[in-house]
Amino acid sequence: MTTLVRLLPVTASPPSLQDNTGDLDRLQRAIRTRPGFAACRLMVSYRRLGDLAARFRACGFRGVALLNELPPPVPGPAPAGEPAGWELVDFLAAAPLRLPALALDLGTTHLEAVLLDLLSGDELGRATRENSQIVHGADILSRIHFAAGQKEAGNGLARLQAAVIGDVNALASQLAGEAGLAAAEIRALSVAGNTAMGHLFLGLDPYHLCREPYIPVVNAPGPVAAAELGLNLHPAAPVHVLPGVGSYFGGDLLAGIVACDLDLAAEPAMLIDVGTNAEVVVGCRDWLVACAGAAGPALEGGVAKMGMRAGPGVIERVSIDPVSGALSFRVIGEDQIDPASSSAAGAAAAPRARGICGSGIIDLMAELFLAGMIDIRGKFRPERMGARLVQGPEGPALVVARAAEAAGGEAVVVSQVDLDALMRSKAAMYAILATLMEQVGLPFTALGRIYVAGAFGRHINPRQAVVLGMIPDLPLATYRPVGNSSLVGARRYLLDREVRERIGAVAKKITYIELNVNHEFMIRFSGSRFIPHTDRSLFPSVPVP
Amino acid sequence: MTTLVRLLPVTASPPSLQDNTGDLDRLQRAIRTRPGFAACRLMVSYRRLGDLAARFRACGFRGVALLNELPPPVPGPAPAGEPAGWELVDFLAAAPLRLPALALDLGTTHLEAVLLDLLSGDELGRATRENSQIVHGADILSRIHFAAGQKEAGNGLARLQAAVIGDVNALASQLAGEAGLAAAEIRALSVAGNTAMGHLFLGLDPYHLCREPYIPVVNAPGPVAAAELGLNLHPAAPVHVLPGVGSYFGGDLLAGIVACDLDLAAEPAMLIDVGTNAEVVVGCRDWLVACAGAAGPALEGGVAKMGMRAGPGVIERVSIDPVSGALSFRVIGEDQIDPASSSAAGAAAAPRARGICGSGIIDLMAELFLAGMIDIRGKFRPERMGARLVQGPEGPALVVARAAEAAGGEAVVVSQVDLDALMRSKAAMYAILATLMEQVGLPFTALGRIYVAGAFGRHINPRQAVVLGMIPDLPLATYRPVGNSSLVGARRYLLDREVRERIGAVAKKITYIELNVNHEFMIRFSGSRFIPHTDRSLFPSVPVP
Repeated sequence: MTTLVRLLPVTASPPSLQDNTGDLDRLQRAIRTRPGFAACRLMVSYRRLGDLAARFRACGFRGVALLNELPPPVPGPAPAGEPAGWELVDFLAAAPLRLPALALDLGTTHLEAVLLDLLSGDELGRATRENSQIVHGADILSRIHFAAGQKEAGNGLARLQAAVIGDVNALASQLAGEAGLAAAEIRALSVAGNTAMGHLFLGLDPYHLCREPYIPVVNAPGPVAAAELGLNLHPAAPVHVLPGVGSYFGGDLLAGIVACDLDLAAEPAMLIDVGTNAEVVVGCRDWLVACAGAAGPALEGGVAKMGMRAGPGVIERVSIDPVSGALSFRVIGEDQIDPASSSAAGAAAAPRARGICGSGIIDLMAELFLAGMIDIRGKFRPERMGARLVQGPEGPALVVARAAEAAGGEAVVVSQVDLDALMRSKAAMYAILATLMEQVGLPFTALGRIYVAGAFGRHINPRQAVVLGMIPDLPLATYRPVGNSSLVGARRYLLDREVRERIGAVAKKITYIELNVNHEFMIRFSGSRFIPHTDRSLFPSVPVP
Repeated sequence: MTTLVRLLPVTASPPSLQDNTGDLDRLQRAIRTRPGFAACRLMVSYRRLGDLAARFRACGFRGVALLNELPPPVPGPAPAGEPAGWELVDFLAAAPLRLPALALDLGTTHLEAVLLDLLSGDELGRATRENSQIVHGADILSRIHFAAGQKEAGNGLARLQAAVIGDVNALASQLAGEAGLAAAEIRALSVAGNTAMGHLFLGLDPYHLCREPYIPVVNAPGPVAAAELGLNLHPAAPVHVLPGVGSYFGGDLLAGIVACDLDLAAEPAMLIDVGTNAEVVVGCRDWLVACAGAAGPALEGGVAKMGMRAGPGVIERVSIDPVSGALSFRVIGEDQIDPASSSAAGAAAAPRARGICGSGIIDLMAELFLAGMIDIRGKFRPERMGARLVQGPEGPALVVARAAEAAGGEAVVVSQVDLDALMRSKAAMYAILATLMEQVGLPFTALGRIYVAGAFGRHINPRQAVVLGMIPDLPLATYRPVGNSSLVGARRYLLDREVRERIGAVAKKITYIELNVNHEFMIRFSGSRFIPHTDRSLFPSVPVP
């Protein structure tokens, strides 16, 4: 068992006149008789001291000690593979049946959490919730400005922190309740988020994150007791915000790297995580290089007027008959609330459309291109479109779902403005990938595997993305969706010391390239603003319509 | 410099796009380049994180880091003589001129504190204050009962803790103010007190301290940040309550042991500390044995009706002309507020008497015995006493200072009841010393030195104590007053890592004998209830009056 929190059976001799050491010293002495604990650091925080000693006594000086693993003195693997120490936090009369812990993906728009049992490794529940900070700013930048703008009042940062802490508390209560537990029984929390979200969660000033040279307050914060953050978990539950590498490279991506074992790969592979930013890592067990750039919103459906995240009632697939020009679409059904099972969708149960997600727009655009209904710049060709083209408030737009097919009675349309946004996003994405590969001196064909994380990876049809020139023209089997990889990494962080050490090691060895200041990137971006690319030889599999 | 808090000059390269690590990580990295810091544990508490990083940035990434030494992982000397780690708490633009720290002797009746400069080792001030817990109970036992009796209300212990924290805050404010500082500039606090006082200071339940088998909650509590205790020092000032060995053997005595270097002595020596209890240690660099017993109150003037602690207006010396029976006394003068200088007293400046301290009563009783005015049981011989003997409310009493010589117009008297109490105390003291020596198998003559701590050691005339049979009949040069040895130890604890390690080592190696359950002690106690002893051969130097 190398979980972050550990149970250790302890039997101590009861106090006597001949052996009158203190209760807590007695407990520590008994723990030190166990293999591997003789000389380790064994901390007790002042907040736990009285309670811990009283419980030990109340249990008759025998039972089960709860220990939180302390991080190693210097980040990275501990010298002898042994943990550097333990924090002694609780004492129970008998071993509990479950040892609940929470893993959290702390996203800018959504939080997703898994409740785990550390004893069995079983998942006890999973839940998602919108990030309440959204009322103070839709994106990271506006929240950073909110934190700074309210500085005089001294509460902008505090309000953002309180909002997200409230969200985590709500998730903890919900998941604990569904599992027949109290939130206060949750004994640990791992948090994988981007660097800005990590700062706001910890109440650290994010001011310099978005100003050159983009410096975080801290990359590798130590564990914090849940009570210190106002979390409703067990007060001594250690909260580990996974380390990041830079302002644009957070613990979510480090978690993703270990989730798909990129750091163990024998051959170079790539991880693409599209959230608010597109974050990309390429490497293997010997080296890792990463970069990030703004390519995300359009890809998540966040830019199109009727765009939205994948969910029930959202158009996720579009096809156009290249001969007749007839358009059909598939809507995510109510039975597909778990997005992971969306591939099992049947049109029969499909509700009416209420919007379109990123993968739906990508599908649509690729089909429009293959049907010759848009040109290589992504512009509508009205002469080829017929009645589906209407004049909307923002100019020409395509009716994807007619009012009669739509949930609210309002047609789902995608405008030229929306397509232009997607063109910029897809160009940025390809430019990011190409720039990164150029930096490491490898062709795309050197990549044995490309992991695609998040909702983007789950819903996208790689073939359509290749058609658009968003991702390189490689065999489709190269692309592997990996779901919420940061949540997977956060979960593994709780269960496995090796994963914790690997995250520390990856943080030390990874090289981060700042694209915001990369001239090469800007050139590549311009060349990518065509379908599939100005250099068609890069996409031999894509037919000329 | 091996002070508990250390200044470390740090110069880091400023952030750039090529070196975009976090502010705190940058600071830690810079510290790790310093000799001895490469692989040490370097902790930052959550409470300090944001402030620390902001100060480092505000100082332009160069200045002076403040580090609190962490205790070693396992109590005792660190393996390689190196500290196990540091807590990084603050960053300053430049080295301060002074680094103030407070050493505290946490007594049951009085607190005494020294404000030190850790840079120079200089004493910046010294102050004493009554322990405010006294309103909740004059002695330890009544306070333990108060803590337990108010348990339902949940506030007995909290009120006792709040009282003493308030006292320490008052001392800190006073001493800081007198030194031209703010209390919040005090960077560390060491506390030497008996085990019960340590518990109440930390808010730990003292319930089991006074119940067989007399078990503390903890003997060796770790450091606590001042802010967590509600102290008005710098919030991150580490508060070290010196470790104890048992319920009746606290950090005050361990501090005393290192203060007189008993643990380094080549030949056996003894330390006697009379406070609320008499605590006695005998030993040398190879072994140490200790015991404690109730012998104190009468010796501190706490039992006699007009008894009081040494201070201005208090009778500290009495002599009786064995021929004429004329009694004279000396009062501590107003210029003797510093008790350490009381030996320089002149009768000319003496104020009128308002009471009598322990050493005064001991003097009186020895002189009465040598003048034949009391018998070997300590009883008045009225036929030898004349007009000084009066009939008081509690029976026969001796007028030491007549009403005309007394401050309040009321004569200072010592009654038979008072003398009986002193007889019990002196008998207990000798019985403690004799039992302890019997346990270690050495005669008193094996002791090269007997250190006598506290007000008792400062004021007592060893010759008179020998006459009474309170302490063994050894050459008077054997006896060495050492002042407030626990305060001396607490002070050295702040300044010297070797002293901190020695205290940990002494705690591990000392053997404590529980006298409350020692049959041998009870027999010796009975034999000691005569002046000087039933076995006169033990006191060859004491004449038969």
